[in-house]
Amino acid sequence: MLTLTAEGCAARRQHLMENTPADCLIITNPRHIQYLTGVYISQLGLTGYGSNYLAIDHTGKSTLIVHNFLGSNAEHAHVDEVVVWTWYDAQSNAGVPIHRSATERLASFLPDLSGTHVGIEEGQFPYGVVDKKTVDITDTLTTMRRTKDDDEIALIHEAIDAIAAGHRAAREHIAPGKSELDLYTAVESAIVHAAGTAVLMLGDFASGERAWAGGGPATTRVMNAGDYMIFDLFPVVNGYKGDYTATLSVDGTLNDTHKRLQDALHAAVATGEAALKPGNIAGDVYRATYQPVLNAGFSEENIRHHAGHGLGLGHPEPPFFVPNSTEVLEVGDVVTLEPGAYGNDFGARIEHNYLITETGFERLTHHNTSFT
Amino acid sequence: MLTLTAEGCAARRQHLMENTPADCLIITNPRHIQYLTGVYISQLGLTGYGSNYLAIDHTGKSTLIVHNFLGSNAEHAHVDEVVVWTWYDAQSNAGVPIHRSATERLASFLPDLSGTHVGIEEGQFPYGVVDKKTVDITDTLTTMRRTKDDDEIALIHEAIDAIAAGHRAAREHIAPGKSELDLYTAVESAIVHAAGTAVLMLGDFASGERAWAGGGPATTRVMNAGDYMIFDLFPVVNGYKGDYTATLSVDGTLNDTHKRLQDALHAAVATGEAALKPGNIAGDVYRATYQPVLNAGFSEENIRHHAGHGLGLGHPEPPFFVPNSTEVLEVGDVVTLEPGAYGNDFGARIEHNYLITETGFERLTHHNTSFT
Repeated sequence: MLTLTAEGCAARRQHLMENTPADCLIITNPRHIQYLTGVYISQLGLTGYGSNYLAIDHTGKSTLIVHNFLGSNAEHAHVDEVVVWTWYDAQSNAGVPIHRSATERLASFLPDLSGTHVGIEEGQFPYGVVDKKTVDITDTLTTMRRTKDDDEIALIHEAIDAIAAGHRAAREHIAPGKSELDLYTAVESAIVHAAGTAVLMLGDFASGERAWAGGGPATTRVMNAGDYMIFDLFPVVNGYKGDYTATLSVDGTLNDTHKRLQDALHAAVATGEAALKPGNIAGDVYRATYQPVLNAGFSEENIRHHAGHGLGLGHPEPPFFVPNSTEVLEVGDVVTLEPGAYGNDFGARIEHNYLITETGFERLTHHNTSFT
Repeated sequence: MLTLTAEGCAARRQHLMENTPADCLIITNPRHIQYLTGVYISQLGLTGYGSNYLAIDHTGKSTLIVHNFLGSNAEHAHVDEVVVWTWYDAQSNAGVPIHRSATERLASFLPDLSGTHVGIEEGQFPYGVVDKKTVDITDTLTTMRRTKDDDEIALIHEAIDAIAAGHRAAREHIAPGKSELDLYTAVESAIVHAAGTAVLMLGDFASGERAWAGGGPATTRVMNAGDYMIFDLFPVVNGYKGDYTATLSVDGTLNDTHKRLQDALHAAVATGEAALKPGNIAGDVYRATYQPVLNAGFSEENIRHHAGHGLGLGHPEPPFFVPNSTEVLEVGDVVTLEPGAYGNDFGARIEHNYLITETGFERLTHHNTSFT
């Protein structure tokens, strides 16, 4: 299984320590635990429940403190020490709440922190472990996460490759008489087989009037000839995301509005791509992307959401391609362009993923975005 | 969509207030938010990220405080008030960490709590919102959750019905030459179609030597004639779980060890069921269940885990059918019996789910547990 590298995790920990006014750190967010140790805490198993912690002391020593359900996953953690405590071994009565016990283990592990500034993630760090002198490190982590490292890009590539199989399956299976759930299961099966492992399958699978509204999860709705369906696929694959979209005609025909919309969205991606350069402003990327859609006769009211956003361990993440964003594009950003337009009797979106490079961008996705 | 009822949620909130020495409560655990409001916070959407809170003041007034990704799900919350705050609307830059912002919203919403005992869930309640006089209410919630209410049982029935389709699909699709992932996707597709919605698909899909070890997630392993595969299916369906198991021969044949094991496990379920009565001790259920397995010539070393456990919003939950448990069975417990035995060249497990009733039990699951 592809994972983040030991070198990448160590460099990120060091960078984090050097960029926060804290003497030690306690990491709570599961995404940040993966980012700094390589251990993916999946929601698709009992491993994903409970709380786990990464402690980094003033010398830089890193200790991962996990419950036993996560124990085997943590064997290959890129840290100095792994402490596994037993919540439930299926032999003796668990008898204690897993979250409270995790925090008690963390508290008992920590040395005297008086006089120490403890770096934490506000809103996730639990009450009752330390009393004072905390420093929120969330902003530092958010900033770090924007610039993707090579080992992260490898995992994003893996996610994107798996999603490609999902888009091919959508195109192969779509037909009048099938339900959104039929397409959901066909797409998910293709992604799972391509990934070689179960994935947390998030996405929009919206047909008919639900496509006019922009998205939503798969339902039992059965598709009719003349419908369109939006496939916005953003699963979590081994902890990282791809996030890209196609809109398909259910019966392979296009009405005039959707012909015009398809051309407009392809033009939008082209002008959006021309704006993907380090130093450019995220708000300008928004405007560049949507100008061809307005030029094609669609109105501001038809444009209801961002033109794209960053992605990585989660999404949406900075930078945000929205009108008022003054964020500056940087080398190492991984972003989407996802123009869409919606009205009373139409709706479609297409989306690609990009790595921002010194000369502009590398497009990471290669799926067919024609509606037929 | 089936949900917990307004009456059930109100009664549980009242019971909780009456059984904790707190003047007000702030609920953090997503499972407990569903338990007390009816709102399922799914991990299968952007709704599932971030933090949401339920506050119950000294008058019993309940307020659900959610970010906008969960806003439409929260419209039907069984509470007095819903406060929706906007983290990201895809129009303006989000720009702020979602977890920290959620906690800031919670803090700004709360009145002066000085002199007040605040009931919280230790290990999940975030640092920095209140400074003192907290009371941990986790044990009260754990105790309450053991006794399933009617609206909860309806959701467990729904989960179990969906899983039944998964077991039928496993039996239909299993064959030499298929991979564990082939079976995983066939089973998940059947469950999703039966549930009418995506589910969080947790389970063991372990064949060959992986079955000898008891379980594990689906892999790319291709099955051979002579293999057995353990299907332990415990998805989350609209927030609640079923959890039941079958073991299948891949080619429809049984060797002598597995014939003997199949008979022993069926006998184990029968003697375990005979012990499922209110007032009985969980440790005794363990011994009753495993005695036929020992009688059939399997050793203590072949018996590596519990004989079952409680389930509901999660699993495993109390009561635990383990040797040293002194928990007493009660009307309203929902439990599994899951005897299994494993050795160097064999391994199998079967499992059923039960509601404990005044006269004994109602078996909730009706799948075929023969290995062929």
